[in-house]
Amino acid sequence: MRIVRFSPPPSTAPNAQDPREPVFAILDDARPAGEGRAPRAGSLRVLSRAPWLGGSPTGEVVPYDDRVALLAPVAPSKILCVGRNYAAHAKELGNEVPKEPLLFLKPPSALIGHEGTIVLPPESTRVEHEAELGVVIGKRCRAIAPEQARAHIFGLTCTGDITARDLQRSDGQWARAKGFDTFCPVGPWIETDLDPRDVRIACTVNGATKQDGRTAQMIFPVDVLLAYASRMMTLEPGDLVLTGTPEGVGPLVHGDRIEITVEGIGTLGCAVRK
Amino acid sequence: MRIVRFSPPPSTAPNAQDPREPVFAILDDARPAGEGRAPRAGSLRVLSRAPWLGGSPTGEVVPYDDRVALLAPVAPSKILCVGRNYAAHAKELGNEVPKEPLLFLKPPSALIGHEGTIVLPPESTRVEHEAELGVVIGKRCRAIAPEQARAHIFGLTCTGDITARDLQRSDGQWARAKGFDTFCPVGPWIETDLDPRDVRIACTVNGATKQDGRTAQMIFPVDVLLAYASRMMTLEPGDLVLTGTPEGVGPLVHGDRIEITVEGIGTLGCAVRK
Repeated sequence: MRIVRFSPPPSTAPNAQDPREPVFAILDDARPAGEGRAPRAGSLRVLSRAPWLGGSPTGEVVPYDDRVALLAPVAPSKILCVGRNYAAHAKELGNEVPKEPLLFLKPPSALIGHEGTIVLPPESTRVEHEAELGVVIGKRCRAIAPEQARAHIFGLTCTGDITARDLQRSDGQWARAKGFDTFCPVGPWIETDLDPRDVRIACTVNGATKQDGRTAQMIFPVDVLLAYASRMMTLEPGDLVLTGTPEGVGPLVHGDRIEITVEGIGTLGCAVRK
Repeated sequence: MRIVRFSPPPSTAPNAQDPREPVFAILDDARPAGEGRAPRAGSLRVLSRAPWLGGSPTGEVVPYDDRVALLAPVAPSKILCVGRNYAAHAKELGNEVPKEPLLFLKPPSALIGHEGTIVLPPESTRVEHEAELGVVIGKRCRAIAPEQARAHIFGLTCTGDITARDLQRSDGQWARAKGFDTFCPVGPWIETDLDPRDVRIACTVNGATKQDGRTAQMIFPVDVLLAYASRMMTLEPGDLVLTGTPEGVGPLVHGDRIEITVEGIGTLGCAVRK
């Protein structure tokens, strides 16, 4: 099942409130699998609330066409990330392979959705892409064991941990370098029926492949990450966990188009501008 | 005006949902100012939603007595913090005074309220108190100027940036050391009518004063902090900003009681246990 989030069209009901708040929906995509660039076809079944909070179809169905702007398909209380989780990526930035997961946070204000725009801030001269598998929590996690992790996952999505590399190096703490508005693209949807253990994750810039790895290369796989993190901080339903990036990170400049693909999910595309 | 958050008593209405969700309320405290330890007296006027989202009194009034457990009076989309914002504190930990605000994030899962319990995690052998002035955002801030900051503040509260000092040093990134559940006490309430520029901020452990500073000693005062942060990340209504701690940080052990007082607000008290 694919879960999206979007701003529904104005209601025709009398006394309706406009503009309406964003809603979650189940995407019934009528296109053949993998035809992400074909004209959209299918429908969106609007949910009463986020599915991990018990949302169910309201009965409202909206056509899935080019008038629908997809938002980041999440509304997390926190975005927890892990650094240096692929050995080849740790090495390419001159870092040692960590002995424990290296955790950091991104603010929800950084979220953008599919076909959103990554804005390069004037404070940085070197903004880089990091394609990552995103894990959306389904049930509250507190000190879970790795073997319990899978039952606590709602689904998986494509994410970017966009990073001002120069500020990451100069600040010490990464909150600013990784926390600018638009630095956390997520989408296009959450896929609920995918095993995270060995899928391809790739990133292209202007059509050229820059990152091409597999989640099986993670130093700390998803179940270990969730168990580790849940010993420190309770993971709430809807929380988003970014699981680290494979090697091949590189710069983004004004006018670029970035596409992040996770096998079995789809392709998240974003423009880049100053 | 003082704003609190609490779980209201069960409704007597038919078909009412129990237990009820936490609500925000206006506290009309009948005790003389400063008598924080006298028996509670007064009333709580329940609000329809968070006041920074336009909440207004629903008409429900609950007696303010010892049966009311105060929650952290916030529900932030992010908790943004600043490190080393008092010169004497930077020095006591052997750090240089920063040239720009040093930003980091705490997860909302770390929040506890007045009379909550700080739980010492087994991963750390050195957990320390850091008393801080907390700023609650009232209006969305995006690239504001310092002189606009005051109009974007909803109110002020007492906060603790509880820190596992050993893990802060060993991890490099501070998300784990400062992100454990219960590591962000906030309260007892938000005070909306206080000038943040020069108030006393103090911390006692078991009655002995450990920290005693004034907000006028901040390297980057509140208006400069909000302007700086809002250039990077949009501050949303309800977001919480911790503004750094004065000198005197020190360890907390099982059985301690910590009290954080900000002049003009009140005293936030918490127990400490393993």
